[in-house]
Formats: sequence, C-alpha cells, structure tokens
Amino acid sequence: MAKQQIGVIGLAVMGKNLALNIESKGYSVAVYNRSREKTDEFLQEAKGKNIVGTYSIEEFVNALEKPRKILLMVKAGAPTDATIEQLKPHLEKGDIVIDGGNTYFKDTQRRNKELAELGIHFIGTGVSGGEEGALKGPSIMPGGQKEAHELVRPIFEAIAAKVDGEPCTTYIGPDGAGHYVKMVHNGIEYGDMQLIAEAYFLLKHVLGMDAAELHEVFADWNKGELNSYLIEITADIFTKIDEETGKPLVDVILDKAGQKGTGKWTSQNALDLGVPLPIITESVFARFLSAMKDERVKASKVLAGPAVKPFEGDRAHFIEAVRRALYMSKICSYAQGFAQMKAASEEYNWNLRYGDIAMIFRGGCIIRAQFLQKIKEAYDRDPALSNLLLDPYFQDIVERYQDALREIVATAAMRGIPVPGFASALAYYDSYRTAVLPANLIQAQRDYFGAHTYERVDKEGIFHTEWLK
Amino acid sequence: MAKQQIGVIGLAVMGKNLALNIESKGYSVAVYNRSREKTDEFLQEAKGKNIVGTYSIEEFVNALEKPRKILLMVKAGAPTDATIEQLKPHLEKGDIVIDGGNTYFKDTQRRNKELAELGIHFIGTGVSGGEEGALKGPSIMPGGQKEAHELVRPIFEAIAAKVDGEPCTTYIGPDGAGHYVKMVHNGIEYGDMQLIAEAYFLLKHVLGMDAAELHEVFADWNKGELNSYLIEITADIFTKIDEETGKPLVDVILDKAGQKGTGKWTSQNALDLGVPLPIITESVFARFLSAMKDERVKASKVLAGPAVKPFEGDRAHFIEAVRRALYMSKICSYAQGFAQMKAASEEYNWNLRYGDIAMIFRGGCIIRAQFLQKIKEAYDRDPALSNLLLDPYFQDIVERYQDALREIVATAAMRGIPVPGFASALAYYDSYRTAVLPANLIQAQRDYFGAHTYERVDKEGIFHTEWLK
Repeated sequence: MAKQQIGVIGLAVMGKNLALNIESKGYSVAVYNRSREKTDEFLQEAKGKNIVGTYSIEEFVNALEKPRKILLMVKAGAPTDATIEQLKPHLEKGDIVIDGGNTYFKDTQRRNKELAELGIHFIGTGVSGGEEGALKGPSIMPGGQKEAHELVRPIFEAIAAKVDGEPCTTYIGPDGAGHYVKMVHNGIEYGDMQLIAEAYFLLKHVLGMDAAELHEVFADWNKGELNSYLIEITADIFTKIDEETGKPLVDVILDKAGQKGTGKWTSQNALDLGVPLPIITESVFARFLSAMKDERVKASKVLAGPAVKPFEGDRAHFIEAVRRALYMSKICSYAQGFAQMKAASEEYNWNLRYGDIAMIFRGGCIIRAQFLQKIKEAYDRDPALSNLLLDPYFQDIVERYQDALREIVATAAMRGIPVPGFASALAYYDSYRTAVLPANLIQAQRDYFGAHTYERVDKEGIFHTEWLK
Repeated sequence: MAKQQIGVIGLAVMGKNLALNIESKGYSVAVYNRSREKTDEFLQEAKGKNIVGTYSIEEFVNALEKPRKILLMVKAGAPTDATIEQLKPHLEKGDIVIDGGNTYFKDTQRRNKELAELGIHFIGTGVSGGEEGALKGPSIMPGGQKEAHELVRPIFEAIAAKVDGEPCTTYIGPDGAGHYVKMVHNGIEYGDMQLIAEAYFLLKHVLGMDAAELHEVFADWNKGELNSYLIEITADIFTKIDEETGKPLVDVILDKAGQKGTGKWTSQNALDLGVPLPIITESVFARFLSAMKDERVKASKVLAGPAVKPFEGDRAHFIEAVRRALYMSKICSYAQGFAQMKAASEEYNWNLRYGDIAMIFRGGCIIRAQFLQKIKEAYDRDPALSNLLLDPYFQDIVERYQDALREIVATAAMRGIPVPGFASALAYYDSYRTAVLPANLIQAQRDYFGAHTYERVDKEGIFHTEWLK
C-alpha cells in the first residue's frame, strides 16, 4: 500500500480543516484521532478525498512516508505531551513532529530539546486565522530545526494564505520562535481589539452614534490607512440585526469579554524581558474589568462620574480625531510588540527577521492589515531598528497625529469615558520621547530607604549617599 | 552549655541586623554563616552581646533549644534550597525553619509542603523596612503553620515596629501567604513611587519648580492625608545638596530606575489571577522605559512633542489638583492591590484578614502611611469588601477628587508630560464605575472570527451567530 505524505493527529475543527486544506493542494493525508467515531465521521465528510483513516498510533505511523511528517492538532499542554509520548516508540531518526496548537513557547523549547536528543525533529508552529483560515489559508509561523522546516516548507507554502501571490508563511527561527511570534500576534490582536472598542465607545457616547452610523464610520475607515480585517468585521458587525429583538445584535451582546490566555502570556513575558508593553497589558486588564460585570453594575450606582455637557464641537473633526488617535495608538502598540520580539530574539538567540514576520501577518491571520507593509518597509530600511517609532514613515504619522490623540485622551478624561488603551499609548509615546524622566527621584528614594545606589548624570560610576547625614 | 533560643543563618546586613534586634529584646541567639570570616567579624561587632557563633551546620543546630527556631537570611532561590538541604539531616520533628528572604511565594508553598512531610514547620515571612528596619523594627508578615507561628510570635512581636503600641506583625495565613503579602506590599510601593514621581514631574515642568520649592510642597503634603514615609523622604530628598557640584543631589542623579523583580511578580500574578492591576504594572513598565536611557535620548531628538504655552493658570490651584490626583490615584492603586490579595486568598485558600494586613503596613515598612488606618476601618465596616472604592470613606474622597485627577490627566496629555500612573488610575476608576463597557464589541469580534460565543443582556445562555449569513 502506498504511504501517505503527511499525517494529522487530532480531528477537532482545526485539525480537520488543515487536513482538508493540505489534501486540496494535492497531498495524501493519513489521519488519527483518539476516539474512533471522530475518525469515521471525518472520513465520511471527506469521502472521495485522498485521506486515509487509521485507528492506532502504530497504524498511523506506519501509514506515513519517511521521514514522517506528523502534524499534532491536539490540546495544548498535557494532551500534547501525552501524544508525543505515545508516538515516541514508533518514530525514527529524522522524523518530523509538528505542533500546530496554541502552545506556550517554553513548552515548545522543552519538547524540541527532548526530541532532538532522540534525533527527532520538532517544529512548533503558530497557525492563525481560526477555523476558516485553517481551511482556506492561514498564516503559518513555524519554529524549529531549519533542515526539518525545509522538508515541510512546500506543504506550508501550499496551504498558507497568499498576499500578492506570496504565501503567508516563513521560517521564523529555532525551537520556540514560531509559537512565540504567534503569542505576540495574539497579544497585538488584544491591543487592536481594545483600541477599536475604545473608538466605538467614544463615538457612541460623545456623538451618540447608533449602529448604522457606526457602520458608516468604520466602513469609511476601512478604505484608508486603517484598512484591516478587524476594522472590516467591525463595520460588518454593526449591520447585523438580532432576529429576536430587531435590535442591532451588538447592542444585545453582554459586555463581558472572554480570553484564552495568550494575551496574558505576552504581558507576562514582556515583564520577564524588561520590555514596556503597556497597551497590550491594559487591553488584558480591560478584559478582566469587563468580566467583573456584577461588581461594575454595583459600582456604577455609588461611584459618581463627572458632570458632562452635550457635545457641541464639530462632529466631523471629532470623528477624524478618533481615527487618528486609533491609528497612532495602533502604531505604538505594534512598536511595543515588535520591540518585545526583538528583545526575545536576543534573549533566546532566534535571529528573528521582523520584516518577514510583518509580511506573513498580512494575510490569513486576525491582525492582517495594510499597514504591515509599512512595517516591512521600515525593517527593510533598517533591519536592526530598535523601535518602529524611530522609522521615518511612522515618525511622520505620529508627529502629525499626536495632537488628535492628546485631544481624545483629554476629552475622555473630562467626560469620564475609560480609554486605557489610548491613554497608555500616549503615556508610552511621551515617555519614549522624553530624554529625562522623573526616575531620578525614584532612584533617590531607593537609595534613601534601601541603599540601592544610583548613577550620576555627570560621570560614570555607582554612587550611594548617606541621606540622613 | 545552655542552648540558644533562636538561630540565624546568613550574616549579610539583613541577617546581622535582625540578629542584633532579636538579641536586644532579651533573646539568646546562635549565628552561622557559610564563611567563617563573616561569623568572626560579626562576633567582633556584637561583643558582649548574648550571641554565640557556630562554624558548622551541625554545631549551629546543636546550639539551639528544641523545638529549634531557625531564621534563614540567605539569598532567595537556589541558596535557600541548598541551606534547607544542609539543615534537613540535623532537624527533628517540630523544629521551625523561617525564611526571612524576599522569596517568591510559590517557592515558599513548595518548601512548606516538602518540610511538612518530614514533620518540620516552615514559615515564610516578609520582612520590610530595609537595613534600618531590620535593626530597629521592621514590618513582619509571616505565613506558614499557625501552631508554629504561635511559638515564634513573641519574638516577632518583640522585634517588630510599633504603632500606637501595637506591633507591626500578625499571622498572615498558611504556606506562602506571608511572602505573597510582602510581594504585593512591594508592588504597591512601586505604584506609590511612580505616582510621586509623576507629581514631581508635573510640578517641575508645568510650574517650573526648583528643589527648594518642591521640598516645601512635599513637606506640606506630608502634614495632611498624604502623610507617609515615602512623601516624607521625598520632601527630605529635595533638601540634599550634592557636595561636588553644589546642585540639589536629585538633579545630579541619572533617571534610570532599577528594580529587583517583586513589582514584576506582582503584575505577573495579577495576570494569572485575572485581577486588573494597571497602576502597579504601568509603574513597572515606567521603570523599564526609564532604563532605556540611550534610546530615549535618541528618540527625544526625532519625535516631536506638542507646542506648549507657558502655564498661565493659578499655581495654588494646580498644586492642589496634583495633590488630589496623587491621593485619588494612590487610593485606586491600593484598591487594586487589596483586590489582588482577596483574589489570591480565594485562589490559595488563605483566609487573609485585609484589615490586619493594613494595620501591620502602618509601621516599619516602606509604604507606611496614615491612610492605612482608613483601609483598616473600611474592612472593619465590611470584612468581605470586594473593592476599597466601594467603602463610604473612599467613595467620598474619589467623588470629590476625581475632577482634579481628570484635569491633571488632560493637562498632562495636552502638554506632552507622561503620566502613565495617573492616566491608568483614571481609566481604572472610569472602567470600574461603568455599568456597560464596550466589551460587547470585543465579544462580537471574537464570535465573528473564532466562534468564541457570547452572552446576551436579555437572557441566560451561551450564543453563537453565523455573522456572514
């Protein structure tokens, strides 16, 4: 019997759709799932396709061409470890195990090392784009042994989303680099969504816009420099009417945001690396606050807001100011995320290529956006760029848009509208461009109460003062 | 030979000062240090005191009354584990090992469990107040077996700082609770210091105040509701003149703030617990940004700020607005920190008593402040209070002071002065008191691209929409 070119373990929706996507590009696929029924169900769905079902790990492994290419689409964490343990006795040197789950990058580093000791290659790959992306073309971010990646690259390139004919996948780097970049992608996604939510809230509460007007604004924004998947679906969301109530569906949805933890990981890792990541972190905290619905309802009855007058300014000016604030904040958020990738690349020796990463974010994934091209160009101009804000294109934008961001943050403050994302973007921008921050006082305090020492502005060295003398 | 009542391992400055403090209260002390010279040096310093030097772990353990009370003052992490391993063979059931280092609470949980299996008690205790506090009276936050704590309580109460005759120590809770509370104490300290630094920066740049004027303002503030150790030393710092240059020393200190990681731990744990902790986290990020000195200097030359006019308002009004913004932000920061302790207490089954914790923060430690009495009173009124902002005293303050905080955040935004702490305090306050946040849009987006489902405002259940139909 002819062997299959690649195997997929785990037939939940992401595994099934990736298997179908791979098969549709001309590859033969073996599949395996822990429960026989899932496998049978899928074979039923995939009738007539070049997909072979197997009913034991051994049968599955034996059905594959060597070196074997095995894509794990099982739950991150213990189930992934358990599956690898089951596979191990049946694998041979040179086989390639690929983890396509939403795995924490340190787990990927560990597994890569453990399997490498047995001569088995391990690729941890981010797959972004949800169910539909998996089927029609995701953004794929693989990390692991480069020589192993070369062997699966044709498959990844075949199934990935395409932008201007270029596949949205590239080799990211060794061991956990692929899952790391996917994690930061998700963190950036948290930031984008929070900033859009704040823009929506301002338009709704300051200008009193309804869903139909909001649709117009976001649809209009999507034609310009904000053009992106998230702006597009936001415009779309405002058109959806709830069948039961006849109201816009968005107005019927409860304001409690869920999360799956990748935003949190991004923030925790930024804290470990010493990288300031306020926008994404405020976005994670904003989700936490949203989830405290009962407490907020209670607080809303006892904690006063400011006295607010109806808006009497120019509506078009305000809408444009919100747009500019959104774009500038988005730039600051990506500047933070890419600075974090740079710090991680140095910490973990990954040699990341930031421009290429921006390029593969352009299609398939949730944060796909026109402006990622600008990020690519910035890294083309200076591959070692320490922060996107220092690139001439972004410098020019933020110089022109900062007045709008200042106006929006000030307006929101005076009107009692929470804008943690916009406010932290502005604080970041103003901190970053300030040559002398007030941290001299913090160092004086630390030296005063804890003898933690300080540096001086006028000469090298480490100093301590006996403050009480 | 008579046995000693307590032993101290580790004779760096904190260990030495605690040993001296304990001895001064009438206890006999045995000491041990890995290097004989340190022990001899200390015995020389402590001549005539009731302190006995030992030169091996065995000799040390044998010098102690049973059940033995052993205070470890060694480096957190591997050195603490190594010392415990050395002690183990010499200990007996009922002995009490006390870790007084700045240990991560999960390590304390682990060690408590491991030693408990051998019948040995383990207390992890926060000790705050720096070198001077250790000698003259620290704030002590012990966690571990309650019955073991009873045996060391008299010593802790004897050496702790006293406020109104009450010792600044109390049993915090099981296993890692003591080190946890010390960690949050340090996080709150980061927040306090950042907020003070922002107040300083505003007065310096908006009003152009020099060190002498700043001293006056902070000394004045220290007489009122802001009265605290950190405000007191800040006032003091502005009086210190650099001998070399004749300038105020604070102006000669480089604006790069260091940190030792406890603020970072606090933020990372808040992210794990799902607790919004923006002020402390922004304070940690502000230290990271301060440390990027070279990059900021570079950025300051290419990233423009706003066009700013000289201040023409009422100076006294502005100073009072900054004071109010500082106090309100401080209240929000403590509300966040205490909410985090409440979440931790529930997560780790600690049954923390928040009012008692506020009381022991009143003396000895870095965040000691008059207003902790108000926190104690709030928890007396309602021991299950979910957030300090819901207490009548704090409600009243924030209702009256919010206009000032709004004015300061808006002014800073328009003038290009970074105030990440103040801005995130305001965003937190406005989020917390908002019954309906824009997270409905975020849930709509998540359901649109990832089928993550949502809840509705009008009925129970979990819903999903096919958005593209």
